[in-house]
Amino acid sequence: MAITVVGSVAYDTIETPSGKRERCLGGAATYFSLSASFFTDVRVIAVVGEDFGKRQEAVFAARNIDTRGIEHVPGKSFFWAGSYLDNLNEAKTEATDLNVFAAFEPKIPAAYSGSEFLFLANIDPILQRRVREAMPNVKLVAGDTMNYWIKDHKPALLEVLKGLDILLINDTETKMLADNTNFVQAARAVLKLGPKSLVVKHGEYGATLFHHAIKPASTKMKYDTKCFKAPAFLLEQIVDPTGAGDSFAGGFFGYLASQPEQTPAAYRRAMFYGTVMGSFACERFGTERIQALTRQEIDARFNQLRELTHLD
Amino acid sequence: MAITVVGSVAYDTIETPSGKRERCLGGAATYFSLSASFFTDVRVIAVVGEDFGKRQEAVFAARNIDTRGIEHVPGKSFFWAGSYLDNLNEAKTEATDLNVFAAFEPKIPAAYSGSEFLFLANIDPILQRRVREAMPNVKLVAGDTMNYWIKDHKPALLEVLKGLDILLINDTETKMLADNTNFVQAARAVLKLGPKSLVVKHGEYGATLFHHAIKPASTKMKYDTKCFKAPAFLLEQIVDPTGAGDSFAGGFFGYLASQPEQTPAAYRRAMFYGTVMGSFACERFGTERIQALTRQEIDARFNQLRELTHLD
Repeated sequence: MAITVVGSVAYDTIETPSGKRERCLGGAATYFSLSASFFTDVRVIAVVGEDFGKRQEAVFAARNIDTRGIEHVPGKSFFWAGSYLDNLNEAKTEATDLNVFAAFEPKIPAAYSGSEFLFLANIDPILQRRVREAMPNVKLVAGDTMNYWIKDHKPALLEVLKGLDILLINDTETKMLADNTNFVQAARAVLKLGPKSLVVKHGEYGATLFHHAIKPASTKMKYDTKCFKAPAFLLEQIVDPTGAGDSFAGGFFGYLASQPEQTPAAYRRAMFYGTVMGSFACERFGTERIQALTRQEIDARFNQLRELTHLD
Repeated sequence: MAITVVGSVAYDTIETPSGKRERCLGGAATYFSLSASFFTDVRVIAVVGEDFGKRQEAVFAARNIDTRGIEHVPGKSFFWAGSYLDNLNEAKTEATDLNVFAAFEPKIPAAYSGSEFLFLANIDPILQRRVREAMPNVKLVAGDTMNYWIKDHKPALLEVLKGLDILLINDTETKMLADNTNFVQAARAVLKLGPKSLVVKHGEYGATLFHHAIKPASTKMKYDTKCFKAPAFLLEQIVDPTGAGDSFAGGFFGYLASQPEQTPAAYRRAMFYGTVMGSFACERFGTERIQALTRQEIDARFNQLRELTHLD
C-alpha cells in the first residue's frame, strides 16, 4: 500500500572524517522515500527551487517514486551544511538556508489521495498537522520531529502528536518531550501524548519500540510483547551518518506499509528493516549507498541482524 | 565447575538521585561472586581489614561462596565513595582509600587449586598476572580492567591480555586500548592483543560480544556467528548502577562455567545472563537486590530479554 511523505528535499554539503561532498541531494523526504521505495510505492510532497533539475528528478524516477507532489518554485532549494569531524554521532550544523522551504505550503495532488499510509517528516508541526487533516482517510500515520520544535513550538507539536499512530524520535528528544531524564518513564509519558507507538532511535546503539500497552509499575518495568529492541548493525566504517534516521524511518514504515496487516510481529520486523536501511545509509556519502541498493542486499543484512541478536 | 575470582572486597558510600548509603559492602569481587554464585561454585581471593566482620562474612556464606581466600589483615578495608547525582551512567568518584588493598599480595588457598575457571577482576595487572601464573591449569580465564591501567600501566596490562580467554571492558576502554575511535575496528585490534573473546559493555545500551574469527573487510563488517549483541534490559528506575558491570561479568562467566561445553551458543546465553544480572544490580543500592534474588527470577528475566529482542 502506498505511502505519502511530506518533508524536505534539499541539498547538503557534508564533511566527515572520510571526506567532503558539496551540495549532494538530501533532505528527510529524499532519504525516507528512497529507503521506503524498496518496500512499497512512495509519493512525495515537497518544494524545490530552480536548482532542482532533471538529474535530481532521475534519482526519484529510478526508484519509481511519485514526484508529482514536489512543487517547483522560483529561488533556491533548502540547503544544509554540516560537519561530523568532531563527532560522527552528531552533526555540527555549519549553515541552514531555508530558501524556498521558508514559504512551503504543502499541496496534495489528487493522485495521492488514495494513500493509506502517511509519513510526516521533520518539518514545522503546523504544516504536519495541515497535511494530516487534508488526508483524513489514511490508515496509519507516522511522524518525526526534532529538538527545535519540541523546545520552541510545543503547543503546535502536541496537536500533531494527538493524530499520530507512530512517533519516531531519538533519546534526547524523548526525554526533552517528556521532561524526564529516565528513558523508560519518558517513553511512557510520550505515549500518553497521543502516539500509539513510539520508536526511539539510539544512533549507534540501535532503537527501541514501545507500544502504549506497557503496564505501569512501581520500581521495575513490566514487559509485554509490545516492547522490542533492535541493536544497530555493526559497521566497520561510518562514512556519513547523514540521513540514517530518515532511512531508518523509510525502512520501518515502508516495510509496515508493505504488509497486509500491521501486527506486533510486523512491527518487530519493521524495526529490523529500519535498522538495516539506516546502516546502509551510513556506508557512503549522502544517498549514494541507498540509491545503489538491491532488495537482495537488504534481506541479506536483515538475516545478519537476526544472527547478531538471536540466541539460536 | 568452580570459579576463582581475585579482586576487591570493599566498602562503598554511594549517592544517587534515589538516596544515599554509607559504607555498604561492595568491591568488584563481591559483586562478581554474588552474581556468579547463582550459576556455579565461587571462590574469592581478596584482602580485607578489621572492619570486615561476621555480618559481611554472612553475605558470602548465604550464597555458599568460599571465602577462605579472603585474607584478614590489620587496618581498614578498601573504601570508595562516589556520586551519580549528575549522571546515572557514570560515577563521580569522591574518595578512594586503598587502605589494606595497597599492599595486597594475593594468596591462593590450596583448596582453590582445582578451579577450572578464573576471573581477574579490575586490579593492578601485575597482581592479575601473578594469580594467572599461579593457576596454570585453569580451563578458561576472563578479566576486567579500567582506564587507569590502560593509560598508565599499559605494558603490564598487555602481558595480562596475552593470557586471557575473555576480556570484559566498556566502549571507552576498548577505544582507548586500541587507540582507535571506531568501535568495530577497536574491538578487532583488542582481539589481536591476546583475548580470544571480547565483551564490550555499553551501559544502558547493552553489550557486544566479539570472537576473533571476525573476518577482515574493507568498508563493511563481515559477520560470522561469533558476534552477538545483547541490548540492556529496560529499567524504569535505576536506583544505583554501582557494580552493574561486575554483576554482568558474574552472570556471564558464572553461566559459562556452569555449562559442560563453552560453545558459541553458550556464549550467547551467557551474554543474556550477564545482562540480566547487571540489570538486577541496578534496582537497589549496593548488593541488596543481588543478595535477595532467586534463580527463578533470573530465568524469568532471561525469558523477558529474549522476548524483548527476538522476532518470533
